[in-house]
Amino acid sequence: MNAISVIDKKRLNEELSYDEIKFMFEGFLNGDIPEYQMSSLLMAIVLNGMSDKEIVALTDIFVKSGDILDLSSIKGIKVDKHSTGGIGDKTTLIVAPIVAALGVKVCKMSGRGLGYTGGTIDKLESIPGFNVSLEEDEIMRQVNEIGIALTSQTRNLAPLDKKVYALRDVTATVESIPLIASSIMCKKIASGADKILIDIKVGSGALVKTREDAEHLSELMVKIGDSYKREVRTLITDMNTPLGKAIGNSLEVIEAVSILKGHGIDSYLYEVCVELATHMVSMGLNKSLEEARDMVIECLESGKAYAKFEEFVKRQGGNVSLLKVSGNSKVIRSVKSGIIKNIDALKIGMLSAELGSSAQKQGDVINYAVGVVLHKTVGDIVHHGDALCTIYLGDSTDYFNPLDAFEIE
Amino acid sequence: MNAISVIDKKRLNEELSYDEIKFMFEGFLNGDIPEYQMSSLLMAIVLNGMSDKEIVALTDIFVKSGDILDLSSIKGIKVDKHSTGGIGDKTTLIVAPIVAALGVKVCKMSGRGLGYTGGTIDKLESIPGFNVSLEEDEIMRQVNEIGIALTSQTRNLAPLDKKVYALRDVTATVESIPLIASSIMCKKIASGADKILIDIKVGSGALVKTREDAEHLSELMVKIGDSYKREVRTLITDMNTPLGKAIGNSLEVIEAVSILKGHGIDSYLYEVCVELATHMVSMGLNKSLEEARDMVIECLESGKAYAKFEEFVKRQGGNVSLLKVSGNSKVIRSVKSGIIKNIDALKIGMLSAELGSSAQKQGDVINYAVGVVLHKTVGDIVHHGDALCTIYLGDSTDYFNPLDAFEIE
Repeated sequence: MNAISVIDKKRLNEELSYDEIKFMFEGFLNGDIPEYQMSSLLMAIVLNGMSDKEIVALTDIFVKSGDILDLSSIKGIKVDKHSTGGIGDKTTLIVAPIVAALGVKVCKMSGRGLGYTGGTIDKLESIPGFNVSLEEDEIMRQVNEIGIALTSQTRNLAPLDKKVYALRDVTATVESIPLIASSIMCKKIASGADKILIDIKVGSGALVKTREDAEHLSELMVKIGDSYKREVRTLITDMNTPLGKAIGNSLEVIEAVSILKGHGIDSYLYEVCVELATHMVSMGLNKSLEEARDMVIECLESGKAYAKFEEFVKRQGGNVSLLKVSGNSKVIRSVKSGIIKNIDALKIGMLSAELGSSAQKQGDVINYAVGVVLHKTVGDIVHHGDALCTIYLGDSTDYFNPLDAFEIE
Repeated sequence: MNAISVIDKKRLNEELSYDEIKFMFEGFLNGDIPEYQMSSLLMAIVLNGMSDKEIVALTDIFVKSGDILDLSSIKGIKVDKHSTGGIGDKTTLIVAPIVAALGVKVCKMSGRGLGYTGGTIDKLESIPGFNVSLEEDEIMRQVNEIGIALTSQTRNLAPLDKKVYALRDVTATVESIPLIASSIMCKKIASGADKILIDIKVGSGALVKTREDAEHLSELMVKIGDSYKREVRTLITDMNTPLGKAIGNSLEVIEAVSILKGHGIDSYLYEVCVELATHMVSMGLNKSLEEARDMVIECLESGKAYAKFEEFVKRQGGNVSLLKVSGNSKVIRSVKSGIIKNIDALKIGMLSAELGSSAQKQGDVINYAVGVVLHKTVGDIVHHGDALCTIYLGDSTDYFNPLDAFEIE
């Protein structure tokens, strides 16, 4: 077997065998296959696609490149939840306590965010005292005792995926539904949960731009799950506008607390959280969607969800009442009147990132107190001079004006 | 401008501007663009193609990456001839003296062969005493005086093409008609001839496998020529079977001499040479194809073509009567009777290369005395025990038996 003939085969749109995929990708991890051959293969994959069999094979090779978590010491059905990423997505902070309060075991070890979107771990670290670095046995004990732990990764999961992703990022080979499916699923499989719910974000602020691609991605992820006998469900949710009002770590935790306390029940954020929690409860406790939805709403309204959030934050050393938001803020006002047609998620995300809310590259220091709070949402009527959003700045007063993120007609 | 967005554009099958192509390829030459980004772009080009405008732009960037020869000190119309490469292709050795004898100026500076096919320079070097390394002013003087010089390159022509080709070779991105067109034409344009004839080889032993691809390549090369106001003509000729009977450096020179002396007039090699020479004479002397063809045949039959060959070889120091062929030969005989349906050019080329007739990688030493001589051609009737070919071996007696290159039914 040689690299050129394998790339050639994919160039000619022929199906690669498990061994051929393994030869190339394992070879890339251990340095036998140079970057220039891997990037040529990746572009051929992006343009010619992959068969279901190839996608399952690639995922398996990713999974086996690193550690595989064993969650068997946690009693009950472990349900994992993953979002393909979006601006203002704080759903994990809301959904995980709800379902834990209802008896579904949530043991979630996350990576940090990179780029425009902060990760769940970054958001949790904005809570003073919160410890994301627990030992594995402590994590298992915590989940057995209170039903939930959200921590950073204890193991080296799918290092090959990480190396391939870094190359895709600089070779314009990110936008491939099969590669996105493998990349997400390998980490979920290696994380050891019994059942997996994937929130596929679709829109301008997401990796997946069209409904059609989202449906294709959904189909592939379910098939990958099948090959490991793990139930996978997906929800396709909107990411043309930011999710909720807050973007930025502390600000998002504050918004999450507000939803957990039962506020914002007519918002899209609330509805997405209820939907996600409903599916997790349905999967974890074998309930119908109707039953599960009733349980979720009751959990929020009764205060049980927030109580579970408080319990788990306290258990991991955090104190929500000490959350800090920058005192240096600036209100952005509309310069015309009309109806808000769209709020560009990507632009708002870029602004928040520029303010310092997420790491642009590995090692960047995050400012938890900065971000953006939207005062209006799509469909709202605005008048000249109305506040559109508030920007919470760090030390620098240098930022780009997000006025053109608001499409008003 | 950044590399990722340019690659992305090509991935999405949008047309790149001159500046975008320049940014990527010049950047690759000077080291700003890493190999992994260039190979990703190359695969996107292979799979999505290039517009005519992009191909002309890329060729121009290749041309400008190095020296451009100025042949203006040579009087008369300079006509260049190029073959896309094939097994046993010694047409330059035959055609150049014919047209020079008729008054067309031939100033051809060639690169060396690499891979299965020896280059014209390698073939000439098999003539004892022949000097391929002339100074530029000596070359110009020789062409003005005797109408012909065949030498190695004096200048650094299109170094960017060379660097890109080396990367294509190891990333399975060779087979792209637009990239092949640019790669060939940039060197022809930089070589400075007024008019250019391209012999496009098509078949199993050639880079171009199908007639359709050959026609596409032809069209692109003519368009590139147009953009420089250089007349480009093409001929599409067969390379499913080796061209002529001899494969290997000295053996090919001996066959060329035989054709120049007017032998083999019913062979395909003879016909291809007459065709090529006819077009060169037609271009160089503004004759109709009928007139030109008559002139070419008269030139061969009268002995003027061979006289010009002898004159030019002597002028460059060579002595054809000293050509050496290996004394260690082996006749391969048919093990069945029937009609020869095909002689696989690639297999014969690989055998000859294995014997040592061409450099597999830069710096390999060539054995000029080895090779293969075919005794039968396609359509011939053979009987069990008939000689199919003779192999001229070097020191080693280790070679693979070419019996399965002969398809007999």
